[in-house]
Amino acid sequence: MPTAPLTLASASPRRKELLERVGFHVKVVPAGIDEQRFEGEPPEDFTKRMARAKVQAAVRRLRATIYPSDAEGGRVNSLASARDDLARWVIGADTVVVVDDVVLGKPAELQEAREMLLRLSGRVHRVVTGFNLFDLRRNKEGLQAVATQVRFKHLSRAEIDKYVSVGESMDKAGGYAAQGVGAYLIEDLSGSYTNVVGLPLCQVIEMMEEMGATEILPF
Amino acid sequence: MPTAPLTLASASPRRKELLERVGFHVKVVPAGIDEQRFEGEPPEDFTKRMARAKVQAAVRRLRATIYPSDAEGGRVNSLASARDDLARWVIGADTVVVVDDVVLGKPAELQEAREMLLRLSGRVHRVVTGFNLFDLRRNKEGLQAVATQVRFKHLSRAEIDKYVSVGESMDKAGGYAAQGVGAYLIEDLSGSYTNVVGLPLCQVIEMMEEMGATEILPF
Repeated sequence: MPTAPLTLASASPRRKELLERVGFHVKVVPAGIDEQRFEGEPPEDFTKRMARAKVQAAVRRLRATIYPSDAEGGRVNSLASARDDLARWVIGADTVVVVDDVVLGKPAELQEAREMLLRLSGRVHRVVTGFNLFDLRRNKEGLQAVATQVRFKHLSRAEIDKYVSVGESMDKAGGYAAQGVGAYLIEDLSGSYTNVVGLPLCQVIEMMEEMGATEILPF
Repeated sequence: MPTAPLTLASASPRRKELLERVGFHVKVVPAGIDEQRFEGEPPEDFTKRMARAKVQAAVRRLRATIYPSDAEGGRVNSLASARDDLARWVIGADTVVVVDDVVLGKPAELQEAREMLLRLSGRVHRVVTGFNLFDLRRNKEGLQAVATQVRFKHLSRAEIDKYVSVGESMDKAGGYAAQGVGAYLIEDLSGSYTNVVGLPLCQVIEMMEEMGATEILPF
C-alpha cells in the first residue's frame, strides 16, 4: 500500500481510474490550461508540453496551499515539510490522436466526432500520450511521450452514427473511448494499451521507480 | 439495441463484462467441460476445441429447455420457433497463455501462479483465445482463434509476491489479469487487447456480421 498520495493534475476520470485500479492513492488537482498546439509542433513535443503545463499549474496551486505565507511574501510554515511529503509527487498527461500527420484532440461537437471517426475508419493511427512526473521536494521532473499504433475496423457512416449516438465521443481525443463501447472499433494495436486510455501505466511506474517515488507506489 | 440475447457458454465474468460493455444482452449458460489438452495439440486447436465443447454443452442444455418433449423422444412444442429465436446464438471461448511452447492455463494454486509470472517476466508471450459462435436455428457455426503478443516488464521475485498477494491471479490463464492490477505488468502488446482479457471483441463482432446475427448486435 502507498504511504503517500499521488497528485493528478488532470480532470480526466480515465487517468484517475487507471491509477486507482493498480492501487495508487490519487488526489486530483485539475489544472485548466490553454491547449494550443504550435504550428508544426510534433505530437510528442506538444503532449509533453501540455503535460508539463498541467503539472506546473497544479504545483502553483499546491504551493499556495502548503506555503500560504509565501503567497504573501512571508516565511515558510513550520509544518511545511510534513505537508510537503503529502503532496510531493505530481503527475500530468495529455493525449492526442495522430493520423496523416493531422493531430486530433477532443471533438468540439458531434459532427466533428463523426468526421474524426470517418478519418480513422479502416486505418492505422497513432495515439500519443505525453506525461510529466514532478518531485516537489527536489524540484526534479521526468518527461516522456509514448506512442501506440491502433488499427480501426472499417466503419460505414451508419455505424459511425450509431457509435456517436452512444454518447462517449465528446471528451475523448479522436472521438472514441477504447475502454468503453469503442473497444469493438479496435481491430488490433501495437504498443501500450493503457496509453490509448490515457496513461501508459507500465512506463509511468518505471519512471516513478527511477525517480525514487517509493512512497506513492502501490507495490 | 439488440432485439435478442446472446447466450454465453462460459462462467467467466470478464467475457460477460466485455460483451455487456459494448451493449450485448448476455444470458449466461455455464458449461462445465473437461479441459484436457492433447499431447502436442497446438494452442489454437486446443482453445477452439474447448470453445466448441463449451458451446455444445450449452446447446444441449438449451435444447432440453426449448424442446422438453424432444428429451422424451416426443414432438416439438409449437412455441419452439419463437423460443428458438430467443436462444438462437451461442458463443463460447477459451483462453491460454503460451511461452516457450509451453501452454499455461489457470494456476491451481498461488505457488503455480508465482512460477507462471516468473516465466513471463521481462519476456514476450502469446495469449491465444479460441471462440465458437453457433447458430442453433441453422445448425451452423463459426470457429476462430486469435493470438496477441504481450511483453511483460521485468519482475523481481518480491514484485511477483506482491502482485500475487493482490489476489487476482487464481482464475486467469497465465496468472495475471490485464484488466486489473495486472495492467501495469504489460509493457506493450501487439494484436487485440480484448483478446488478452478473454474475447477479441472486434473479431467476434465481425464473425457475427458475417453469419447474419443482426438481432443480437448492439449497433
